[in-house]
Amino acid sequence: MEATLGELCESLAKYGMKPVLKGDAGQRIGRVNTLEDAGEGDISFLSNPKYEKMLGTTEASAVVLRPDISAPDRLNLIQIDDPYAAISALIVQIHGYRRHRRVPPDMSGTHKHETARIGQNATIHPGATIDEEVMIGDNAIIYPGCYIGPRCRIGNNVLLYPNVVVYDDTIIGDRVTIHSNTVIGEDGLGYAPVEGKWFKIPQIGHVEIEDDVEIGANCSIDRATLGRTRIGRGTKFSNLIAVGHGTQIGEDCLLVAQVGLAGSVTVGRHVTMAGQVGVAGHLRIGDDVTLGAKAGVVNSVPDGQTYLGQPAIPIRDMRRQVVHQQHLPELSQTVKRLEKEVAELRRRLAERNEDAPPARG
Amino acid sequence: MEATLGELCESLAKYGMKPVLKGDAGQRIGRVNTLEDAGEGDISFLSNPKYEKMLGTTEASAVVLRPDISAPDRLNLIQIDDPYAAISALIVQIHGYRRHRRVPPDMSGTHKHETARIGQNATIHPGATIDEEVMIGDNAIIYPGCYIGPRCRIGNNVLLYPNVVVYDDTIIGDRVTIHSNTVIGEDGLGYAPVEGKWFKIPQIGHVEIEDDVEIGANCSIDRATLGRTRIGRGTKFSNLIAVGHGTQIGEDCLLVAQVGLAGSVTVGRHVTMAGQVGVAGHLRIGDDVTLGAKAGVVNSVPDGQTYLGQPAIPIRDMRRQVVHQQHLPELSQTVKRLEKEVAELRRRLAERNEDAPPARG
Amino acid sequence: MEATLGELCESLAKYGMKPVLKGDAGQRIGRVNTLEDAGEGDISFLSNPKYEKMLGTTEASAVVLRPDISAPDRLNLIQIDDPYAAISALIVQIHGYRRHRRVPPDMSGTHKHETARIGQNATIHPGATIDEEVMIGDNAIIYPGCYIGPRCRIGNNVLLYPNVVVYDDTIIGDRVTIHSNTVIGEDGLGYAPVEGKWFKIPQIGHVEIEDDVEIGANCSIDRATLGRTRIGRGTKFSNLIAVGHGTQIGEDCLLVAQVGLAGSVTVGRHVTMAGQVGVAGHLRIGDDVTLGAKAGVVNSVPDGQTYLGQPAIPIRDMRRQVVHQQHLPELSQTVKRLEKEVAELRRRLAERNEDAPPARG
Repeated sequence: MEATLGELCESLAKYGMKPVLKGDAGQRIGRVNTLEDAGEGDISFLSNPKYEKMLGTTEASAVVLRPDISAPDRLNLIQIDDPYAAISALIVQIHGYRRHRRVPPDMSGTHKHETARIGQNATIHPGATIDEEVMIGDNAIIYPGCYIGPRCRIGNNVLLYPNVVVYDDTIIGDRVTIHSNTVIGEDGLGYAPVEGKWFKIPQIGHVEIEDDVEIGANCSIDRATLGRTRIGRGTKFSNLIAVGHGTQIGEDCLLVAQVGLAGSVTVGRHVTMAGQVGVAGHLRIGDDVTLGAKAGVVNSVPDGQTYLGQPAIPIRDMRRQVVHQQHLPELSQTVKRLEKEVAELRRRLAERNEDAPPARG
Repeated sequence: MEATLGELCESLAKYGMKPVLKGDAGQRIGRVNTLEDAGEGDISFLSNPKYEKMLGTTEASAVVLRPDISAPDRLNLIQIDDPYAAISALIVQIHGYRRHRRVPPDMSGTHKHETARIGQNATIHPGATIDEEVMIGDNAIIYPGCYIGPRCRIGNNVLLYPNVVVYDDTIIGDRVTIHSNTVIGEDGLGYAPVEGKWFKIPQIGHVEIEDDVEIGANCSIDRATLGRTRIGRGTKFSNLIAVGHGTQIGEDCLLVAQVGLAGSVTVGRHVTMAGQVGVAGHLRIGDDVTLGAKAGVVNSVPDGQTYLGQPAIPIRDMRRQVVHQQHLPELSQTVKRLEKEVAELRRRLAERNEDAPPARG
Repeated sequence: MEATLGELCESLAKYGMKPVLKGDAGQRIGRVNTLEDAGEGDISFLSNPKYEKMLGTTEASAVVLRPDISAPDRLNLIQIDDPYAAISALIVQIHGYRRHRRVPPDMSGTHKHETARIGQNATIHPGATIDEEVMIGDNAIIYPGCYIGPRCRIGNNVLLYPNVVVYDDTIIGDRVTIHSNTVIGEDGLGYAPVEGKWFKIPQIGHVEIEDDVEIGANCSIDRATLGRTRIGRGTKFSNLIAVGHGTQIGEDCLLVAQVGLAGSVTVGRHVTMAGQVGVAGHLRIGDDVTLGAKAGVVNSVPDGQTYLGQPAIPIRDMRRQVVHQQHLPELSQTVKRLEKEVAELRRRLAERNEDAPPARG
């Protein structure tokens, strides 16, 4: 929705932010854009100092940045302490969230079992399947190709993008979003070895996804063998993430793409895992932990720690270790040189000993 | 199905197990549950000693555990050598496997080509597509959103969960289960470089999946360029696994989530690969090999070996290497100290040599 | 299409290749096959010297190989400098590419919005969904279970295999192929931290896929937060690849399975990334770069370099480092021995010093 720079500053102030406008308060803004691509009527922002030089060339009609950054006089500026938070608010203000097409509530084209119950104002798109005894909350949107298995309970304002599959008995809270082709509640790798073969153990547990979770595309979250696999309130997943059976993830975590958690892992609150991290089974990852990209975690991690490497260790130790690894060839040379020098010293000392009688004896 | 503890012990004995019941044989059991969540009427188990302390607090009506573990008197116990195998059998006994809804055989709502043939008592759910000349065996269950490409042959008692895609000419044996959103038989990365561009090579091979295989969710198994990609009898996959074109996997293997095998790899029987393992192209992985989590395999692995690390080496060597890596900073300090000491020794020896005439000469 | 060996050589010559035929020009060939599986009427090839011994046992009616390789007299041979390119051309000649079933243009069984426009001779299979204001080019093929979101523009001769999901506003060029269950344009991990919670930033950018790109199965390509995520002309992806928001990939790149690129990465032209590579955010990967399997890239990589390892460094350095790592236990032993020897030397020198008066003083 178009607004003037002055109006945008007022809306930021309502969030408790303290914007300072330098320039034309009447400039009309219709779009948020990158410094590189912005043109007339666009507002942009500078958050990562890496891109500071683009201030010289941008054609944006206004830029949001920190007060200590200098910019050409020609630019309209909104100076603010946290430009990233401010531009996020402006994107919501100007563009809003994706608008979803609603379809008539007659369920035509869907495969809905007669025992399923659909909440008020929910949209089930043609091509979706809602199986026996499913309950779907109010205002939910289920896109084509989704399959909701028997006895699932789906909360209010849930959004399932096309081709999401939810196995039987899954519980999903309110305001949960799941992106396309993600699978929730498939059987985990539960087999008992019997005479060299794998005997399948029925996976009778389920998955619970709490309120305000968002899950990316192509993720797989195993149901528990017994009990439940749990994704805590407010946690956000990127894409291609695997969660093993019985694993418990706390509130407000952030998991980047291709993370894999084995079974029966317990993850605390507000944990960040960077891309391609792996965590072995039955470990505990404490609250406020950060795991660096590609970390291979084989021991439990205490609260508040940052771990890195494979096997993962505290980041400071890993960084020192990496520096030393990269200097290993030199270290090895040094040791070789020392060996020669010590041999030479030994030889010279022996020579002197031959000349002189031994000290004692 | 509810049963008494006495009846459950009898059923374990039929499997050749030797349960010893301590407590009330008449206690009724209706559910298997975790030590933590169990209540009245639930049976639980202790397999991983990590959870032993929960015996003190569990409210389970009975617990399966090894004879050498002591437990509070109030608990009914089934003592047995392998509690994990026993509880697996009890889950089957009490809960059984997932029950699948059958639909009428009129194929309404499906997209079945007229030339496809469907076996007796098979269920093709509305929203599935069965393409030209496909043959599907007896009792198969094909869920909504599945696509079975031209000329595929699908065995008896096969179970395809929603949105599985099977490309043309794939052969799937009996009792195979494939979880949602897995793709079988897509083209591999087959291109010839021609003047700096990639010229696509038609991938005219196919995929064969033998009897009793189970494949997790969101996996991708490339068809062969020529010949076949093969998954051997009884092998089990977790989720998000990638198998390259022409790779051959033997019988009774277990692959954990996010494993990636390049093309033309040959894997023996009864191989275990932990999470996020990668194997380079054209290698041979022997029988009974174990690859540790995140192993990066760049050389063939002989039968019976356990490899770990990146590049992967025998586990004993890798464990020693890791310990030494973690002590690298100290080692480096020691070498620095030695350098100083050797320099000092050299200086002192030189001083003495200046005082005294050289030994010889 | 069946042909004689003589005719096949003529067709290779038309590509500018210089085949030399040794044997029966009239031999009829109907199939390309592996050395191992080939039989009467099949032509095979030898490209990887690893398989040379199979020349002794193959039952192929002809083999394509380099002129310097010797083979049994009984075999018909096509000698040529690049057997891999030649066999690629022969696969096209004899087998051609996959033939796709066309359906009537009446759109029956599809969910097409009234505002969508479909090009001439395009096939939209039943079970596909084409949403509002979508434009699909001529000759495109959209398989069942695909979902094309609002306002997408899809080029001519595009091929989307079953269950591909394309989010709103995606732009796809001509002759693009996308394999099953891949998702294009889902929201990336865009959240601003607000009081310990994650505030979702609307992802108002989009994805652009240029001409002649092929994307494997189960990949996820995030839309940009602002602006676009771009996959350059002629680039090819294998399976299970994750691309973060705003990342730009150049022309003619090759990405192997399970590669993960974070957001705002810039990748040049003709870059090769082997399996399970990870690249951190905001980096620049130059033209003609090669990243070895499992590389963890945390710094930008200049043009033409080959990087390996975690953290990734130039391949020569990494190989040296790995050799030294594997010899760390010995190095550590050597240092321990040196410590003892230096201590011994110091002791002996001290003894002599006790005997004799100090050199000076």
